[in-house]
Amino acid sequence: MKKTSVGVVLCAALAFSGSAVAADIPEGMGALPTKVPVPADNPMSKAKVELGKKLYFDPALSASGEFSCNSCHNLGTGGVDNQKTSIGHRWQRGGRNAPTVLNAAFWSRQFWDGRAPQLEDQAKGPPLNPVEMASASEAAVVERLNHAGYAPLFAEVFGKDGLSYDNMAKAIAAFERTLITPNAPFDRFVRGEGDISAAAKRGMKKVAAIGCTACHSGPLFTNNDFVAFNYGKDEGLKQVTGKAEDDHVFRVQSWRNVALTAPYFHDGSAATLADAVRIMAKVQLDRELSDAEISDIVAFLETLTGEQPQVTFPVLPRPRGATLNWKE
Amino acid sequence: MKKTSVGVVLCAALAFSGSAVAADIPEGMGALPTKVPVPADNPMSKAKVELGKKLYFDPALSASGEFSCNSCHNLGTGGVDNQKTSIGHRWQRGGRNAPTVLNAAFWSRQFWDGRAPQLEDQAKGPPLNPVEMASASEAAVVERLNHAGYAPLFAEVFGKDGLSYDNMAKAIAAFERTLITPNAPFDRFVRGEGDISAAAKRGMKKVAAIGCTACHSGPLFTNNDFVAFNYGKDEGLKQVTGKAEDDHVFRVQSWRNVALTAPYFHDGSAATLADAVRIMAKVQLDRELSDAEISDIVAFLETLTGEQPQVTFPVLPRPRGATLNWKE
Repeated sequence: MKKTSVGVVLCAALAFSGSAVAADIPEGMGALPTKVPVPADNPMSKAKVELGKKLYFDPALSASGEFSCNSCHNLGTGGVDNQKTSIGHRWQRGGRNAPTVLNAAFWSRQFWDGRAPQLEDQAKGPPLNPVEMASASEAAVVERLNHAGYAPLFAEVFGKDGLSYDNMAKAIAAFERTLITPNAPFDRFVRGEGDISAAAKRGMKKVAAIGCTACHSGPLFTNNDFVAFNYGKDEGLKQVTGKAEDDHVFRVQSWRNVALTAPYFHDGSAATLADAVRIMAKVQLDRELSDAEISDIVAFLETLTGEQPQVTFPVLPRPRGATLNWKE
Repeated sequence: MKKTSVGVVLCAALAFSGSAVAADIPEGMGALPTKVPVPADNPMSKAKVELGKKLYFDPALSASGEFSCNSCHNLGTGGVDNQKTSIGHRWQRGGRNAPTVLNAAFWSRQFWDGRAPQLEDQAKGPPLNPVEMASASEAAVVERLNHAGYAPLFAEVFGKDGLSYDNMAKAIAAFERTLITPNAPFDRFVRGEGDISAAAKRGMKKVAAIGCTACHSGPLFTNNDFVAFNYGKDEGLKQVTGKAEDDHVFRVQSWRNVALTAPYFHDGSAATLADAVRIMAKVQLDRELSDAEISDIVAFLETLTGEQPQVTFPVLPRPRGATLNWKE
């Protein structure tokens, strides 16, 4: 279990400076940190992570019994569903492309518009969203989890606080903090343990040279900041703050595992990684990249796919000889 | 890996006769067999089971990308979805309650009406069913799996035959043959390794005394035969054969893990196991059971819940930097 964020920057810097090939690597790039930030009010524990895993995979989080967290943030497919926008309650479509859960513990805020400060806040959203899991209230979710038989599991982890909507979110967040993808080919390259292709190296230098890494910076390949992306109709952060300066502002997405998370952008409108690179360079940097340049950058981005989490599929609590009250 | 069916009856008989408590156990009852029947044309292998597991969990088997085998036959919840009838493509509902995949390797035929002789045949149904996964053709499914990147995995398992709809079904069936639930409390009781409650023992004797075990017989608690159940409008086997004598005929369901698979019957109309026991006794045996008798029988049925499969959630093949062509 990772318990603190201490040393995140340090670890990356050591990995960087200690590598035989460091001189070739643009400034700021480095291996994925191995320690995730953990909030003081939600310390990690084995039992909490195990409970969070059950909740993450449990369709009882949805009113219909059809959707789990894993439906849209599938751990088998890069932590996303590879849909333009996700299918939800009664086949409604969500408004934005599902972001990956992998390494989300490292983001400064959650959701495309950053409206959730941390994983605990994010996890409270989908169960109540009418186009996603569509429960009527927090109480309705808690009642269903109670009926399923979760109360003893919550008591074991949270003591007298027990089963609550907040603790549900805390357990899910704790599980999500284990969904880290280390040892990408790029990370091994940075550490001097392996090589990447010549094309990937050209791409690595190109993204630094043309300025992509001004925002997609550091070992996470995001500065964890908010930047305007004037593309499409979605107003982004302005929908949250109402401020004109937040129009079309979105959180800078990480490049980690980006080769797994097509389609791209907040609206899923870029079908391929090559399209996403071409459009971003044009819209954000006013650069017309050649096909060869795009191919090199894509080759580099493909080196950022890490080892995917190994998770034992959980057996879920359920009332014996009875079922839950699903909403059609 | 279990490779043959040899010894299924023998093992059960030995377990039965070898138990210190054997004298208390009604004739025919016994521990779950440990070896599953495997057809000669689809031998088990580790690589085939691993491929089958990927396919089982892969929403790419559905045209929309929303449903995997596990959506309706969830290994976290007794191999079912605990829905009356399952949610499918564009939120359509299936016509019958989803049967459990657990121990399905032991059934003589598959589906409620037995229209599929074995698991390989069953697995070919849902991907093409318009209210389930809704692909237009076998070729459409194969094309999607090919696009996802399955071809090398099929080549490894099936050699030159490679990726085909039939081999997809073979791999899924091989995985399903590993989904066996041994060591239920009843099995331990039969083997003299543990006890069951007094209520469960009364229930055990009651089901034999009143004749439930004429059909729900043997270690599987099904005779694997077809019996008329005149309940509801569904014509059962008659829909397949067109014969009058097959009206309302269904395959006898196993009691193994039945406490996990609510709601009950082909139409999911019995909400609880107690309801199911009461209705079956009345309709099939013309018995009005008392609440106490029902409670005892339910206590016995609850001893038939075995150890649930431990499965590592698979990482699925996908095209890098691109997605599949989902059907809305």
